[in-house]
Amino acid sequence: MNKQDFRKYAHRAADWMADYLEGVESMRVKPDVQPGDIKNQLPLSPPQQGEDFERIMADFQSVIVPGMTHWQHPMFFGYFPANNSEPSVLGEMLTAAMGAQCMVWMTSPAAEELEERVMEWMRQLLGLPGTFTGVIQDSSSSATLVALLTARERASGFAINQKGFSGAERFRVYKSTQGHSSIDKDVKVAGLGIENLVNVAVDEQYAMIPGALEEAIRKDVEAGYTPLCVVATIGTTSSTAVDPIEAVAEVCRRYKCWLHIDASFAGTALLLPEMRWMSRGVEYADSFVVNPHKWMFTNFDCSCYFVQDKEALVRTFSILPEYLRTGVDAVVNNYRDWGVPLGRRFRSLKLWFVLRSFGVEGLQCKLRDHIALGAWLEDAVRSAAEFELMAPRYLNLVCFRYHPSGVDDEGTLDRLNEMLMEQINEGGRMFLSQTRLNGKFVLRMVAGQTNVALRHVQQAFAWVREAAASVRS
Amino acid sequence: MNKQDFRKYAHRAADWMADYLEGVESMRVKPDVQPGDIKNQLPLSPPQQGEDFERIMADFQSVIVPGMTHWQHPMFFGYFPANNSEPSVLGEMLTAAMGAQCMVWMTSPAAEELEERVMEWMRQLLGLPGTFTGVIQDSSSSATLVALLTARERASGFAINQKGFSGAERFRVYKSTQGHSSIDKDVKVAGLGIENLVNVAVDEQYAMIPGALEEAIRKDVEAGYTPLCVVATIGTTSSTAVDPIEAVAEVCRRYKCWLHIDASFAGTALLLPEMRWMSRGVEYADSFVVNPHKWMFTNFDCSCYFVQDKEALVRTFSILPEYLRTGVDAVVNNYRDWGVPLGRRFRSLKLWFVLRSFGVEGLQCKLRDHIALGAWLEDAVRSAAEFELMAPRYLNLVCFRYHPSGVDDEGTLDRLNEMLMEQINEGGRMFLSQTRLNGKFVLRMVAGQTNVALRHVQQAFAWVREAAASVRS
Repeated sequence: MNKQDFRKYAHRAADWMADYLEGVESMRVKPDVQPGDIKNQLPLSPPQQGEDFERIMADFQSVIVPGMTHWQHPMFFGYFPANNSEPSVLGEMLTAAMGAQCMVWMTSPAAEELEERVMEWMRQLLGLPGTFTGVIQDSSSSATLVALLTARERASGFAINQKGFSGAERFRVYKSTQGHSSIDKDVKVAGLGIENLVNVAVDEQYAMIPGALEEAIRKDVEAGYTPLCVVATIGTTSSTAVDPIEAVAEVCRRYKCWLHIDASFAGTALLLPEMRWMSRGVEYADSFVVNPHKWMFTNFDCSCYFVQDKEALVRTFSILPEYLRTGVDAVVNNYRDWGVPLGRRFRSLKLWFVLRSFGVEGLQCKLRDHIALGAWLEDAVRSAAEFELMAPRYLNLVCFRYHPSGVDDEGTLDRLNEMLMEQINEGGRMFLSQTRLNGKFVLRMVAGQTNVALRHVQQAFAWVREAAASVRS
Repeated sequence: MNKQDFRKYAHRAADWMADYLEGVESMRVKPDVQPGDIKNQLPLSPPQQGEDFERIMADFQSVIVPGMTHWQHPMFFGYFPANNSEPSVLGEMLTAAMGAQCMVWMTSPAAEELEERVMEWMRQLLGLPGTFTGVIQDSSSSATLVALLTARERASGFAINQKGFSGAERFRVYKSTQGHSSIDKDVKVAGLGIENLVNVAVDEQYAMIPGALEEAIRKDVEAGYTPLCVVATIGTTSSTAVDPIEAVAEVCRRYKCWLHIDASFAGTALLLPEMRWMSRGVEYADSFVVNPHKWMFTNFDCSCYFVQDKEALVRTFSILPEYLRTGVDAVVNNYRDWGVPLGRRFRSLKLWFVLRSFGVEGLQCKLRDHIALGAWLEDAVRSAAEFELMAPRYLNLVCFRYHPSGVDDEGTLDRLNEMLMEQINEGGRMFLSQTRLNGKFVLRMVAGQTNVALRHVQQAFAWVREAAASVRS
């Protein structure tokens, strides 16, 4: 493709993008496809000769797009959102054209320094003390792994990096029973063993019970274990429960245990003064992660990781082969040493675009809107006779289930709700997902897509009620 | 930003992208900035009110762009390239607009199935046997970590994931002294300890000596160690040396040791039948990684990881909390379980665009051109009286140094060449990087940017000679 063609097709793509973001609402949210349907439309081998871009674009539109689940559809209420926004998409365009590799300062000075500054902005917005330093990771899975590894190395005097596990370490990691599955995965990756991940009991609000944490740690210490790290969650995946950070931090301080805060989704709400109660005590945490790619209108991937002991972080990951040495290594941040991958995309650009284009007040306004939608939905569930609220609502996630009168068998309720979800999602008009709370099958609806408005949530809940009636009959 | 504004600015961005790719050659490769120069132009806090996109774009153009090292400049000869191409950039645009999260089939069926198919295409193109299954990772650092962890779990009967290290494992990992620094990092992350990474001696071509590997393993086994994994390299970072895969594989088979092949950069050359000698014996490898984001005209990140024992891979990383369960889990690939991060970008789209837009022959033609440029540069170095070729040239990387007659002190030569590199890079007209081979400071020039042509390499080497003359005086 030559330069003139690129200009032509870039404009074509720009129009497709604008059309898509304008028109996504008219598409099915979840596609009407079965496993294999897409793959079977794709040839077994790549073409020998290059193909015209018109043809590739046509296949993209006819084969790929109709096979996607549309995360930017305002009727997408599943999982946690991965919302994007226009300024973020524009940032990604420029990043793609420059194609810079942001591993060390020298390879992209502006990217490195913009990341520094934008992470300072994020620190202020989140209300984190100035003792935290930030770096962008790809995901919370990676950020929490980084926290665990730094804790592991600091606790072992960097001996595990050096010699491997001796077997004498007997480390324990703690999360609540509601902590995210990526913590389980990270504990395995770090060589700690899933049996050494203690799932601490939660209260009726699904928040970690600090007394139970302390009891677990005390018993472990008596049994010869070392409490390595507690992962506390601000906004659990199942129900956005909020672990009591201050009380948890006190336990951690007493046992000299690393405190990592997983605020992947709900951390964005800390931009609102009225939600700062969620992070009370955060100044005692050792590390903190929030994903602007979830609820801050920034394209995946963009995970903001903050750490107090920057030296321990860099010492955990630092490598310096000759071919990466530069003359300014002593005075700059080389983010290569702040996480696992050497190669890094220019991710701060889209975040800068979002922060400037929305402005702090613009972001706050969007977040308050979404939370109000959550409140509306909570009220709707409460006042609908045959529906049941299944967890406290703090933000824009509502956990509920269909509970028709006269049906009290939990197995039947599970099946009814599973059928209900299936019918709703297969209908294609809206999308939600599920979890289990206290063993019960629960529907989750998050009003978090960038452009979701009251009419969407109202319509969605009307459809849920409609589907419920049909599932029962 | 409203939808109409987005359309306007997306076209503005498209023009900027086209202008950038057309005009990047007229920019400095490395910017004329000192640490802090960019950051000091950025306000200490984010704006309260949203800013107009015109203003943001103006700052991008006046503050960020002049502060970037331009990886897409045809005069960028440093490191390994991270080359992009027009179809790849177009793919990234569409990916950004859709903003889909590709963690499980249900969340993006077309993305999952396109990844499957495109990885089958890649397997064919690379000449890997059909027993390999592929998945896209972000980088080789991550892919090699995945290989090490899968090897670790398979060798321990998945006990380390379960219980952590007992201390009785005594695993050893092997690479040549020329193996990449990310292997060192990954060995630490996996809890194996850098002291258990054995750096095997290389021959005069900087390729691993299989006899030395066998000797090292034999001694380790006698001393009670278990040989866990050998990382062999096709195309080392310092000099694109090629470890003898077949002979290495034989040793691995004898000791039942996982063989991972790091072909991050040079693997792309396997698209050329005449370069397949590099991978002879690859059918005996357990895993293999190549980065289309290095030399296959595909935007970072896009790292293709292939593994023979797919079940062991998935078993190593699999998690299944209720909130991620879907009705089709038994019959689809959920790539969440094929690596560390849960969240995943839609990375197969750009790769599909590149493969179709270039076609196999188009890719081969580009690669042959680049290799011919390497050959030209090799000849130029050989015939320049005061320059010295420092390693065999296999592809498009040439390792050389300035060696004026009468100067034979190695320390002086190191200093001269370091000054030479500094002067060249600070000049801004071209960019190269360094390594050390046998302790000697060596200049590396890779002709790998997508649009590099003979005139660039000729001009670059003329400038190198010019700079050399001035450094000496």
